[in-house]
Amino acid sequence: MITMSDTVKKIEKLGTEITKQIDEGKEPNYSIPVRSLGNVYYDKVSKTIKLGDKESKRHFLNIGHARKFMQTILVASEVKNLIKHGATTSIRDLYYALKHTIEGTKENVFEDQSESDPLIEDLEASLGLLREELHLTASTKGIIAGKMTVKDGKDTIDLARMGSGGWGVPSNVEPEKIEIKDLDAEYVLFIEKDAVWKRFNEDQFWKKHKCIIITGKGQPARAERRLVQRLNKEYKLPVYALMDADPWGMYIYSVIKQGSISLSYSEEKLATPDTKYLGLMISDVDKYKIPSNVTIKLNLQDIKRIKEMKEYPWFKKDKGWQKEFDLMKQRNYKLELEALSRKGIRFITEEYLPHKIETRDFLG
Amino acid sequence: MITMSDTVKKIEKLGTEITKQIDEGKEPNYSIPVRSLGNVYYDKVSKTIKLGDKESKRHFLNIGHARKFMQTILVASEVKNLIKHGATTSIRDLYYALKHTIEGTKENVFEDQSESDPLIEDLEASLGLLREELHLTASTKGIIAGKMTVKDGKDTIDLARMGSGGWGVPSNVEPEKIEIKDLDAEYVLFIEKDAVWKRFNEDQFWKKHKCIIITGKGQPARAERRLVQRLNKEYKLPVYALMDADPWGMYIYSVIKQGSISLSYSEEKLATPDTKYLGLMISDVDKYKIPSNVTIKLNLQDIKRIKEMKEYPWFKKDKGWQKEFDLMKQRNYKLELEALSRKGIRFITEEYLPHKIETRDFLG
Repeated sequence: MITMSDTVKKIEKLGTEITKQIDEGKEPNYSIPVRSLGNVYYDKVSKTIKLGDKESKRHFLNIGHARKFMQTILVASEVKNLIKHGATTSIRDLYYALKHTIEGTKENVFEDQSESDPLIEDLEASLGLLREELHLTASTKGIIAGKMTVKDGKDTIDLARMGSGGWGVPSNVEPEKIEIKDLDAEYVLFIEKDAVWKRFNEDQFWKKHKCIIITGKGQPARAERRLVQRLNKEYKLPVYALMDADPWGMYIYSVIKQGSISLSYSEEKLATPDTKYLGLMISDVDKYKIPSNVTIKLNLQDIKRIKEMKEYPWFKKDKGWQKEFDLMKQRNYKLELEALSRKGIRFITEEYLPHKIETRDFLG
Repeated sequence: MITMSDTVKKIEKLGTEITKQIDEGKEPNYSIPVRSLGNVYYDKVSKTIKLGDKESKRHFLNIGHARKFMQTILVASEVKNLIKHGATTSIRDLYYALKHTIEGTKENVFEDQSESDPLIEDLEASLGLLREELHLTASTKGIIAGKMTVKDGKDTIDLARMGSGGWGVPSNVEPEKIEIKDLDAEYVLFIEKDAVWKRFNEDQFWKKHKCIIITGKGQPARAERRLVQRLNKEYKLPVYALMDADPWGMYIYSVIKQGSISLSYSEEKLATPDTKYLGLMISDVDKYKIPSNVTIKLNLQDIKRIKEMKEYPWFKKDKGWQKEFDLMKQRNYKLELEALSRKGIRFITEEYLPHKIETRDFLG
């Protein structure tokens, strides 16, 4: 577990190294990992997307580096302040908090938030810390319910008593912030869509089937993924994904499972390689006799995406996935989870899901 | 209070009127309110946008009406089923649940969700019921915290013990679904942005200042607006809005206060005319000595919107608003709530807001 003072120490190390260089009359510089596609790979051991070990140096006395150098130090110093004051803030707030005109000049330290955001990612990557550990928040969208209690600050929150609303997943779900207690569930169900999550919550699926239900309302934010990873790693709960049977839903599954290129520097802390794909599958159309008039024709973007995903290392060697992608292309259609409502609005919770889990009908 | 059986009765009335027409050998038809701009007005009594009394008739034996006639009856009948089974569903699910090919033909009852959605609005408008009362859910984004307990089904939820996450506002917040209990607050703070809400929640502003804090994460969904209206009407809590000082933030305020044209048929149940605009204002820049380098230049769209809003009936007669709009145009800038972070990240909760409320510095 990383404590607040460990984080501060890591930031201070960056600072003291630079002041040491100055004291010794050397040209100040620091190294950061290269965060481009060329330095991203799939790590077979952790089974996640990872950042490689290529580094680049930023030099204070290089006219092309000087501005970013100054900005990085400003960001690092404000982050240290935040942590010391026990405060958390958004990356937008951080930008505004730092923005000012350098005295005696007309030069602003930042012109735009697009200048400060990448530096935060640089810091995350070079310190090996999550944004949330730097006390910076990302926007979250997710909601969760199930037999589980969390301790968040002074509050103890029973996620089995959230009514129809669910608990809004906070931005920081690290163990030092969110303590998981009294977990009484056999698996986690990661649902792509809010509306489908509501169906599962209204039918109290989580109570009958002893599970935790969570949605990220589309592509989940970091916090939802991190929380699911914790439930999987710390509590050994299997994770099942329930997505639309379309390239977008399958891509979201892929991100939950292995991670994304843009967050490659954090994926070891975010991805859950154990995740299984429960549905919806194209092959379910025959299996569950879903009428053909609820299917949707593929567009060019879909076909392109299927071709790309077939080549992803974790899909490429999986016969089940290859068959599923081929079937989608051959049938030339996709379908949404809501299509199951054609069989009755509770078909998904009362027949489809229980049958899928019972027969262990999922893709890896 | 509208009970489930009242709603069913209203739907059944539509059905029995049509079957009566058929039994009497008459041509089946029904009337619905016209939901176009020409039938929308600002009602000075309720102080909300309202739908006028123009009606149009839909005839079964008119070739241009027949399809919609059939679809409306299908939607009404499925809604009745939902209510009778105590189930709730999304409008997308409803579309899928109904979609099928008419036996013996190749004709689908619906081709696309864009065919069923407007019929739901027709039903809402003609029955005078909210979508939620028809057991249809809209997507919600909002989160809420404060000294208040809600009873939602069997669960009693203490909104003062939600940790950093807050309670996700459910889609249906009608009194028969959500019972408000143990309210210990002096006002409601409606915050435009999620990140700003998080600051207020982290600083436990709601505890120190005895208020309820809610955000709709941008333009709020119906549920957030309805819940705030209930707190205002049933519990007489003043409502203050905290928005960006830009035309979009002021427009959101206008929707919270008076309603929108597209939901004009429901605004009496959604709008909260008592809402006051606390900030952020352009005039705050001088008042609170906000540095000019955090302002953002207006674009053409902004200028167009300011011109339009100056003419809204509720802004037109308000000298304060006219001055504010003129100042924005004259200074040619806007600014975001996060700009206050330039004065320190807790400036907004510890100085700005308390001072605003103490000096009653707001616009009506």
